[in-house]
Amino acid sequence: MDFLNYPQPLADLISGLSRLPGIGPKTAGRLAFYLLQQPQIAESLADAIHNAMENIKECSICSNYTEQDPCPICTSEKRDSSLLCIVEQPRDVAALEKTREFKGRYHVLHGVISPLEGIGPEQLTVSQLLNRLEGIKEVVMALNPTVEGEATSIYLSKLLKPIGIKVTRIAHGLPVGGDLEYADEVTIARALEGRRLL
Amino acid sequence: MDFLNYPQPLADLISGLSRLPGIGPKTAGRLAFYLLQQPQIAESLADAIHNAMENIKECSICSNYTEQDPCPICTSEKRDSSLLCIVEQPRDVAALEKTREFKGRYHVLHGVISPLEGIGPEQLTVSQLLNRLEGIKEVVMALNPTVEGEATSIYLSKLLKPIGIKVTRIAHGLPVGGDLEYADEVTIARALEGRRLL
Repeated sequence: MDFLNYPQPLADLISGLSRLPGIGPKTAGRLAFYLLQQPQIAESLADAIHNAMENIKECSICSNYTEQDPCPICTSEKRDSSLLCIVEQPRDVAALEKTREFKGRYHVLHGVISPLEGIGPEQLTVSQLLNRLEGIKEVVMALNPTVEGEATSIYLSKLLKPIGIKVTRIAHGLPVGGDLEYADEVTIARALEGRRLL
Repeated sequence: MDFLNYPQPLADLISGLSRLPGIGPKTAGRLAFYLLQQPQIAESLADAIHNAMENIKECSICSNYTEQDPCPICTSEKRDSSLLCIVEQPRDVAALEKTREFKGRYHVLHGVISPLEGIGPEQLTVSQLLNRLEGIKEVVMALNPTVEGEATSIYLSKLLKPIGIKVTRIAHGLPVGGDLEYADEVTIARALEGRRLL
């Protein structure tokens, strides 16, 4: 797209917005003009970005995003300290917390092992995980059901089982409200495999 | 959506992003996590917003967005100073400039007359328009083909014609590459009305 006709600060704003995922140059242009018309929203957004960059850090124990280190979940006395859930990203913690079902603590890997992208255990928070295993009785794998997620689950379970820790994985199957007809074969096969007595 | 599980600066960032048009809370969450993972992109976006807010102003002659006042188009000697094109928004100027077909100057109304939304000529740049008519021979209306756009075109033409200025309107008809089958009746009627000798 040709930004030649825009004044430079506007062209810079459009180009900054178009670096966001899922936002192309047309949408970026629309957003930029909206921000120019709504200076209050624009300034508060810029401040929110600065503020988040300055104040959000990774918890030194679980690597989740937090304002205080260690994070409220790692320091909470109400959490079961013998149960640990391993997830890929901080947003996965938020998704699990919304269910209010899980009473243990979390460990955020910040990715999965992916040899194609050059990501090995060293690029993830695996060593931090190995340093916090004292008192842990069960580790629940809640990685995404992708090839890399599966491989990472298997890799970690091979590290954890010999120490005598019970390693489990969240169930794969049909999503609630989903439709058998439209589910893929692998999901249905997993759902059959994981069938339970009624 | 429940932001309780997010640290406050992150919740603020998500809420700031979700105030952008077309961005719901889910997308805002995705963008916020992306920005936290890409601090360089985030900081440069925040700077671009601040910079645009500080340095972009409206040209005192044509009301287009500009860094220098008056804007480069209003001061350019190469532009036909007897020809003026009236548009709704600064982005319409950019769209017209991209064609490289128009050699006159612009006037940005920053909206259209809309009694329902309480927008009359006083809320637009109509008085600035009336102050710059010296030497203008033709005014081209390039407002959007909506009810409000049409009404504003008619209102302005009634002001301009008595002064002896030729008032024209850009053609309405089938978009190039468009399909007669899928065009609405009003567009086809306008295309018939505006037919020209081959």
